[in-house]
Parts: sequence; structure tokens; C-alpha cells
Amino acid sequence: EARFANLRSNKLFESFVIFVIVFSALVIGAKTYDIPDSVSNAVAVLDWFITGFFLVEICIRFLGEEQKTRFFRSGWNIFDTIIVMVSVIPIDDSELAIVGRLIRIFRVLRMVSIIPELRMLLNSLLKAMPQLGYVVLLMFIIFYIYAAVGSTFFATINEDLWGDITLSLLTLFRVMTFEDWTDVMYETMKVYPFSWAYYITFIFFTAFAFLNMIIGIVVNVMEQ
Amino acid sequence: EARFANLRSNKLFESFVIFVIVFSALVIGAKTYDIPDSVSNAVAVLDWFITGFFLVEICIRFLGEEQKTRFFRSGWNIFDTIIVMVSVIPIDDSELAIVGRLIRIFRVLRMVSIIPELRMLLNSLLKAMPQLGYVVLLMFIIFYIYAAVGSTFFATINEDLWGDITLSLLTLFRVMTFEDWTDVMYETMKVYPFSWAYYITFIFFTAFAFLNMIIGIVVNVMEQ
Amino acid sequence: EARFANLRSNKLFESFVIFVIVFSALVIGAKTYDIPDSVSNAVAVLDWFITGFFLVEICIRFLGEEQKTRFFRSGWNIFDTIIVMVSVIPIDDSELAIVGRLIRIFRVLRMVSIIPELRMLLNSLLKAMPQLGYVVLLMFIIFYIYAAVGSTFFATINEDLWGDITLSLLTLFRVMTFEDWTDVMYETMKVYPFSWAYYITFIFFTAFAFLNMIIGIVVNVMEQ
Amino acid sequence: EARFANLRSNKLFESFVIFVIVFSALVIGAKTYDIPDSVSNAVAVLDWFITGFFLVEICIRFLGEEQKTRFFRSGWNIFDTIIVMVSVIPIDDSELAIVGRLIRIFRVLRMVSIIPELRMLLNSLLKAMPQLGYVVLLMFIIFYIYAAVGSTFFATINEDLWGDITLSLLTLFRVMTFEDWTDVMYETMKVYPFSWAYYITFIFFTAFAFLNMIIGIVVNVMEQ
Ligand code: NA
Ligand code: NA
Repeated sequence: EARFANLRSNKLFESFVIFVIVFSALVIGAKTYDIPDSVSNAVAVLDWFITGFFLVEICIRFLGEEQKTRFFRSGWNIFDTIIVMVSVIPIDDSELAIVGRLIRIFRVLRMVSIIPELRMLLNSLLKAMPQLGYVVLLMFIIFYIYAAVGSTFFATINEDLWGDITLSLLTLFRVMTFEDWTDVMYETMKVYPFSWAYYITFIFFTAFAFLNMIIGIVVNVMEQ
Repeated sequence: EARFANLRSNKLFESFVIFVIVFSALVIGAKTYDIPDSVSNAVAVLDWFITGFFLVEICIRFLGEEQKTRFFRSGWNIFDTIIVMVSVIPIDDSELAIVGRLIRIFRVLRMVSIIPELRMLLNSLLKAMPQLGYVVLLMFIIFYIYAAVGSTFFATINEDLWGDITLSLLTLFRVMTFEDWTDVMYETMKVYPFSWAYYITFIFFTAFAFLNMIIGIVVNVMEQ
Repeated sequence: EARFANLRSNKLFESFVIFVIVFSALVIGAKTYDIPDSVSNAVAVLDWFITGFFLVEICIRFLGEEQKTRFFRSGWNIFDTIIVMVSVIPIDDSELAIVGRLIRIFRVLRMVSIIPELRMLLNSLLKAMPQLGYVVLLMFIIFYIYAAVGSTFFATINEDLWGDITLSLLTLFRVMTFEDWTDVMYETMKVYPFSWAYYITFIFFTAFAFLNMIIGIVVNVMEQ
Repeated sequence: EARFANLRSNKLFESFVIFVIVFSALVIGAKTYDIPDSVSNAVAVLDWFITGFFLVEICIRFLGEEQKTRFFRSGWNIFDTIIVMVSVIPIDDSELAIVGRLIRIFRVLRMVSIIPELRMLLNSLLKAMPQLGYVVLLMFIIFYIYAAVGSTFFATINEDLWGDITLSLLTLFRVMTFEDWTDVMYETMKVYPFSWAYYITFIFFTAFAFLNMIIGIVVNVMEQ
């Protein structure tokens, strides 16, 4: 056990794990290109090697843990174990093949669980979340009211953009990113000439809430 | 009266009111989908229940208030009362039916009047407004001068974009959001080859005023 | 003279001048609409009244100044005088009529010279400028080098976008605002498949310089 | 040697070098226009003069340096020397003519190596880089995972946008800049109606990482 614990906290071992993750990411990337069959086969073999290595690696980390029950208290360890477990299940069904590919892609996320600095960065990001709660709620109320108004008035003008409240929310998100928002506006202005007020006020309200969110984060960070 | 006051400050009662508001929001959302008649009738019944509940709730809050005159000093109470009053007026006329729907949508805003944290957030946002006054005025002067120049020179090029000062202001707002602004520019550059200077300077001036606004807010927040 | 000085520093007089400027702005706005002849004539008369009033107002301010030479040391006074002088020159020639309209529009800028808070705001903005000097210079060097490279390689692909260095600078400004920049990129990628590197690096460099500019301003403001 | 050292630290000499660089930039700009043959010839002569001047200038700076080996320890000196060396190589081959033009363009970068303030600004920018390392890495992981997912699902929908992982990364960069991202989304929504979740989550994750990057820089700058 001490040997596994040693190996586990070994810097070289960590570097090698990172190398394998980067390599598996490159393999994923390579697969998206049209590659000759021989290379494709080599990639498949590499893939099995990587899966095997990850299985061994997680075993080492588990065996290196003094208290076995503590191992599964860390969300990252659970994440790693699930990713590895699902990878080793043999999938032949073509329907599920896509799931297998997705699992292989999500293995790249193991980069975050391996590199301590990334784990810390993500944790600090997640910690900032709850303090944003009320601004996000306010923003959602603004979105919901405008989406309801949009669906009520504009559904007959453009079914694809304002057909129901989900579509309206998506359209409003588009307007918030300034993505061809005038096309959306000019279309409704033909029926309701004053509908520009709807868009302008929406942009102002969301911009204001967004600004507030940023300032909230900045002030938060400053205080720490 | 003491009983009403108790009920009013009861956390469970507040939670139930929030639940009803969220539920009424979902009902509004559901209505934007094509739903079968039976569901539609159920939704209509629910709608009457929610209206009734809000009427009862505002009465409880009013009766729970020790000094009745103080009740209407709060802008939120006035807002709540108006929303509920207008909801209970029976509207048969199809012309006014749209007003009824709007009132039901604005009931979602009661979320803000019920949740103290949202009320505080909004108050702090409104308090930051007057300090922005002069930057907003400066921005409006920039907009107005550019809109007047735009109407003078470009009205004959594109009546829809530069026809009068309101349209020009809308077009300039579009340019400020970088929304297909080069389409607007290339069109006028065919007649006035140097009109790019008009757009570039406008973008610089507004970006500068906007930056100043953000910095003003940040400095403001820091000082508190 | 003391009387003029009194009038000049009178709050009511200042308010009246502001009222006339706002009114002249509204007159400018009204002219951009199709208005009946009678209104149009009334507007022309109003215009002459405003011009006359501004002439009187500047005389009062000049006469109210104790040391006449000090009057023209202020850039704002010179600006006001020029605007008023040019307005009173009778312009009949249709060629110059447009100049007359422009002068009337720029009279709205007098708002800034009248309201002390706006004047102060603008001064503080201008004071922040020289400190940005080197970042702006760096940005211009980035723009110029990319524009020269763009003209060299892409001029034959799209004459309108990359024909000469001025057009290239304009196109790069468009790319910086993310305005349909992929249309520009996809076009050159057909000839040079790796030209995406040109755009991506440009966006990174300018975004980085821009970020630096904002941080520079924020730090600047903080220190004061 | 003392004479060269004197000349080298002479303010007037520095100003003259800057003048020549600006002039060479203008010559580069002039060449992008259709210019008559006589002007073209004059420009070619000027070009040779500038190349010659830069050769002399670098020699002066080299001879003015007390310890010759220290000269090449500065990255800027190496940069200057390479730029000048490559400029003096006569290029007749039309294939390489484009390289010659590029070298002439990059000479404008000598502005940075000559003006001490720009050199300092760039150094401070580069110093801020490593601290951003982990956020950039996190962002790249987000990009890579989304690109892999995009290539897997959307490659058959639009080969040009999602054909391989490089194209997917480029498309995602486009989505991050909000550049016609709804066109990309609506296309995939026809096949996968819920693919909007892919884009919305991507925008949220990158916006969040980006925000973190900015805050990181601001906090960094504040601490100094
Ligand atoms: Na855009
Ligand atoms: Na766009």
C-alpha cells in the first residue's frame, strides 16, 4: 500500500498520466479526420491501451488511499471512476457506439481532476456561483416576462422564433448576444411599428443585470 | 389583526406565495404551446384559482398591516394591488383579452415584491442610476447629434434606416451593438465614400462614454 | 457690466439657455419628418429666434466677463462664438445650405459648454487620453502591420475589402468588432486555407491590447 | 567607439530613426495603391535608402555597445538584426518577392524595439501571460471537448463547419464571438432539435472562463 501511495504522489507518475490524457485527446482529434485504415486500426489499439492505463491508474490511486471510504468522498474520484468504468464496458451495438465515443471525449476532463491547479480554479469558480444566485434569478424573471410577452404578440408573425415560450427564450438569448437582432426586430416592426421599444428595453434591462453580475463578482473577488 | 400579521410574516406562507407565483408563470408558459382543450380548460380554472389566491393574499397583507395608511406608502404594495385589481376585472371583449394576458404575465413580477433579497437588489440598482445621469446625458447628446447628421445626409439613401430622427436613433443603436453595422456603412459609402469616418467616430465616442459609465459604476461600488 | 455678470451667473438664465438648446434640438429633430408647410415656416421662424437668442446670450456672457481677453482663453467660449458666428451668416446658396444645417446641429453641443457637470466630465475624459497614448500606438502598429499583410495577400481576392491599406484598416476594424468577420475569413480561406491564423491572431492581439487599455483606465481611476 | 555610443543614446538620432520607420510604413502603405510608374520607381529608390539606413543604424548601435557579446543577449537586438539582414539579401525570384514584402512590413515592428515605452508595455503584457496559464488551459479543454462532440454529431450536417476537429474549433471560436452563431445553431437544430443546449452551455462556460480571466488580470494588476 505504501508503494502505491508513493507512486500516487510521484510527480513523474502524474506527468505521465497527463501525457496519456493529452495523447488520448489527440487520438480523439485524429479520429475526426479521414484517416487510412491502417492508421485507424493503430488508433483503435492505442485507444484500448489508454483505457487499460486509466483502469490501472485509478486502481493505483484507490490502493494508495489509506482509508478506502475516503476515496469516494471526493467528487473527482467518483467522476474518474465512472468515466473509466463506462469506458471498459464493451459496446458493440451501433446505437451505443456514440455513447462510447462521448465517454472517450469526456476522458479529457480527467485533465482537471489530475492537475491540482485546475481543480482549485474550478472550485473557486463554483464557490462564486451561489452569490450570483439572486442576479441570475432576476435575469431569469426578465427573460421569462419578455418571452411570455413575445409569445403572446409575435407568435403569429414568426412561428420559428416566437412559437412557444422555449423558442421565445432562445430568441431573446440571441437578442442579448446582439446576434442579428435587428432582423428579428424589423420583422415584428412591420406588424407592430413600436415593437422596437420591446427590444431596446430588453437589451437595457439585461445589460444592466449583466453589468451588476460582473460588478458583484469583481467586488467579491476584491474582498477576498 | 394579530393573526393576519402572524400569517403575513410566516416563512411557510411566503414560500407558498412564491410557489403560486412560479406555478402561475408555468401556466403562462404552458398556454404558449398548442394544448388540447381539456388541458386548456384546466389551465383556465387554475388561472381563476391563482387570481383568487392573490386577491386573498393581498387582503391578508393589508389586514396584517397595523397602520393601514402605511400600506400604500410602499411602491411594491401599490404595484401588487394594481396587478391584482386589474386581474379580477372580468374581460370578455376580445380587444381587451390581450390586456388580461399581459396582466397575468406581469404577475410574475410579484416574485420581486415577495422575495426581500430581490427587492433589495433592485433598490440598489435604482440607487446607482442618478449617479450615471450625466454620462447618460452625454451619450444621448452624442446619439442625437449623429442621428441629426445621419438624417440630413443619408435619408435619401435608405428611407427605412435614416428616414427621420427616430429611425436614425434606432439605426445608431444598432451600430453601437455592432449588429451588421458594415451593411449600413457600405450602403452610405457608395454615395459618400468618406462616410466610414461617421461610423468609426460614432463607435469610438459611444465606446468611450460606455467605458466611462462602467468605470463610474465600479468606482461607485468600490467606495461603498 | 456688473448687471451682465449677474445675469450670466444667474441659475434661471442658465436654465433658460438650456431650455432653448433642448428646444433647438427638438426643432432639428422635427425637420427630419415630413411636416406641412405651415409648420415648416413656423420652424424656420423659431430657428431665427434661436439664432438671435444665442447671439444675445454670447454677447451677455462676453460683456459679463471682467477681463475681455480671458474670455477667449476658454476653449468652450471660442467654440460657442464660432458656432454662433457661423449661424448668423446668411446662406442662400443651396450648396452651402447643408453647412448651415450642420451648424444648427452642432449647436446641440452647446449643452456641454453650458452645463458645468458635463464640461467637467468631458475634461476628465480628455485628461485620461494621453496616458492611453502608448497602448493606442501599439494597437495602431498591430493594425497597420496586419493591414499591410492583408493588402499584400488578399487584394486580388476581394478588391473592396483589401484593395488598399485604408480599406484593409477598415476591414480589420470590422473584424475587431466581430461584424460578420467569418464571411471575410471564409472568402480568403478558399485561396489560402490557413488564413484563419491571420484572423485569429489579429483578434487575440487586439483583444489583448484592448483589455490592457481598459485595465490601464481602471487602475488610473482607482489611483485618483 | 565613444562617438558611436554617443550617437546611439542621442535623442535626435532616435527621433530620426523613428521618422524613418514611420516613413517606411507610409511607403509600404503607398505601394498598396495603384500608383503611376514614376512614383513607383521613386518608392523603390526610397525603399533601398531605408534598407541602407537601417543597416547603418544597426551597425552604429552594435559599434556603440561596449561589450559586443551583450548586444546579442537582448531579444530586440536579435530581432532588429534579423530583419535588417533579410532585407539586404537581394531577391529576384518572384516566388520569394512576397517574402521580401513581408520583411519590409515587419520592419514597422522596429518601432517597438526603438521606443522604450512600447518595449516596457510589451514586456509587462508578456509578464502577465504565465499567470493566465491555467485559465487558458481550462478554456482550451472546454473548446476541445465541445469540438470533439461537435465533430462527432454535426460532421454529417455541415462538413465545412464540423468536418474535423480543427474546423470545429474554428466554428466554436466563431460561436464564442457571437458571429452569426444562430445560423450555425438553427442548422443543427433541424437534425437534433435539442442541440441549442450544446451552444448555450458552451457560451456560458466560455463566458464564465473569460470573465475569470479578466478578473484574474484585474486582481493581478491591483496587487502590483
Ligand atoms: Na454580431
Ligand atoms: Na452579425
